[in-house]
Amino acid sequence: MKIAIDAMGGDHAPEAIVKGAEEAIAGIDHLQITLFGDEKKIKPYLSGFNQIDIVHTDDVITADDEPVRAVRSKKNASLVLMAKEVKENRADACISAGNTGALMSAGLFVVGRIRGIDRPALSPTLPTVDGKGCLLLDVGANVDAKPHNLVQYAIMGSIYTEKVRAISNPTVGLLNVGTEDGKGNDLTKKAFNQLQQAPVNFIGNVEARDILSGAADVVVTDGFSGNIALKTIEGTATTMFSLLKQTFMSSVKTKLAAGMVKKDLKGLQSQLDYSEYGGAGLFGLASPVIKAHGSSNSRAIFNAIQQAANMVENNVTDTIKTTVESIDWNEGEQG
Amino acid sequence: MKIAIDAMGGDHAPEAIVKGAEEAIAGIDHLQITLFGDEKKIKPYLSGFNQIDIVHTDDVITADDEPVRAVRSKKNASLVLMAKEVKENRADACISAGNTGALMSAGLFVVGRIRGIDRPALSPTLPTVDGKGCLLLDVGANVDAKPHNLVQYAIMGSIYTEKVRAISNPTVGLLNVGTEDGKGNDLTKKAFNQLQQAPVNFIGNVEARDILSGAADVVVTDGFSGNIALKTIEGTATTMFSLLKQTFMSSVKTKLAAGMVKKDLKGLQSQLDYSEYGGAGLFGLASPVIKAHGSSNSRAIFNAIQQAANMVENNVTDTIKTTVESIDWNEGEQG
Repeated sequence: MKIAIDAMGGDHAPEAIVKGAEEAIAGIDHLQITLFGDEKKIKPYLSGFNQIDIVHTDDVITADDEPVRAVRSKKNASLVLMAKEVKENRADACISAGNTGALMSAGLFVVGRIRGIDRPALSPTLPTVDGKGCLLLDVGANVDAKPHNLVQYAIMGSIYTEKVRAISNPTVGLLNVGTEDGKGNDLTKKAFNQLQQAPVNFIGNVEARDILSGAADVVVTDGFSGNIALKTIEGTATTMFSLLKQTFMSSVKTKLAAGMVKKDLKGLQSQLDYSEYGGAGLFGLASPVIKAHGSSNSRAIFNAIQQAANMVENNVTDTIKTTVESIDWNEGEQG
Repeated sequence: MKIAIDAMGGDHAPEAIVKGAEEAIAGIDHLQITLFGDEKKIKPYLSGFNQIDIVHTDDVITADDEPVRAVRSKKNASLVLMAKEVKENRADACISAGNTGALMSAGLFVVGRIRGIDRPALSPTLPTVDGKGCLLLDVGANVDAKPHNLVQYAIMGSIYTEKVRAISNPTVGLLNVGTEDGKGNDLTKKAFNQLQQAPVNFIGNVEARDILSGAADVVVTDGFSGNIALKTIEGTATTMFSLLKQTFMSSVKTKLAAGMVKKDLKGLQSQLDYSEYGGAGLFGLASPVIKAHGSSNSRAIFNAIQQAANMVENNVTDTIKTTVESIDWNEGEQG
């Protein structure tokens, strides 16, 4: 199996990317990795594995680049060459911690969609209190979703959760403003009805306050609301950790207490760290494409590689393809 | 000034409601309060102020009642009588900690809208790191908003923030999936353009992760997304406090540390307690209507009464009315 990785994307590139790749080669069998980026910057971190190749390029898409334009104009950027490697079957999957919008564009325009999937979904697995994790999709690939898009997300999310995360018959919830049937806006009301007919274990509406308590294994929503939920979780957690830090630094006594629980609080922080579950999959593309978090360290990159390898090994893409093909979408598309 | 209060709504009714009312009478000048509910249950908590009247009724709307139906059929419920008191000018404002949907229905069908406002907005003030607070609207009164609804929210939110919270020329942000101009779904793209023309201090898009860091004094969004954001904040905070508690209870050492910072952590919790800013206003109605949080204690009820009194005293409703009337909405309504 061969995985293509953008070595220049993310806050700690290329160091974290290269180190994560090496950890993956050491830990995962039958793996080949191709790193895309500036050879001079990559090599210092490479301790020399035969299973890692470098494809050199000077060009890079930055966080500030306008995604669609960048993918079209910077044809030799590390992220674009990486996607091309998958498109032209020289790699089975690809990973970038760089510009999210650019990766979504490269996924759509270079890798291409699975036939029958109208819109790919950006799909992170969030940590839950019970440790099981919750796949939330979409968090921003498609901000104007139609009801049948949400049904496709439910199908793709269920297949991924069953095959890669080994949760059998995963529960699927619809993110909504209340748990009762019939709640919601025009989109969720229609999607609710279609989800009841879909080949997934649909359990009804789920409220945003219950995502982290593990109300469902898979939660589907439009990309706008999903993005709001994801970023609100990030913002609230960041705010609380900073207030907690202030509280602990406020007096000699609290500083002393802080010293006593420092290690335990680090554990708490890692319980909330969703890079433990890998990156966010861009489900619905012709091959697995993973968006690793921008702040990924080498451990997060290792997890993303593990995740991509699992997706390839368990034929997630093919299963999505055959499942979607077996459904008559005409009815759904009216919604 | 006279304020009507539903004594039977909320988890701690009627005790917290009655006590909050008494604190308000003691602390706020020229105030009269009418409590609606079961006299036998209210009286035991009443130490006897001339400025508090009781209007007895046995009927009550519960949390499980279907809102619209309950308001129409339970004409003598405490919440409905309270709203009627305002409609018939026997009170200047009203407050309930009960069924949110029922209060919204009573607001619309009993109290009525300000002429020119198409949809009222449920508008809580969230705590921010800088202590200034952020008014988020709408969080669920109108889940299928149009662009011009968001402009009206911006106007109502600005007037409230300026007059009641004494923040001059408050900044207004549009909740969106990115901060750059041109980002978003169909709704936010159109609303962005209209907000640039509106008589408010519009500062552009705001991401959900920046709400609590105080990116804007007022953040406008459709009721669906706002509800997701609000409940995600609640869920994340609850999850973190429960994980924190687990962490502190995990060993003798951490228990000892917990004892040392207990008081300080309570302070942290109250920093995140948005009942400090009062309840959620239902802006756009002909008189101030306040939804106090379901878990309100007497302090939260006091704050909601203070807030309602400030809205009456500062003519918030009239100012909204004259401002909305001065705008030509034809252009906006095309959006």
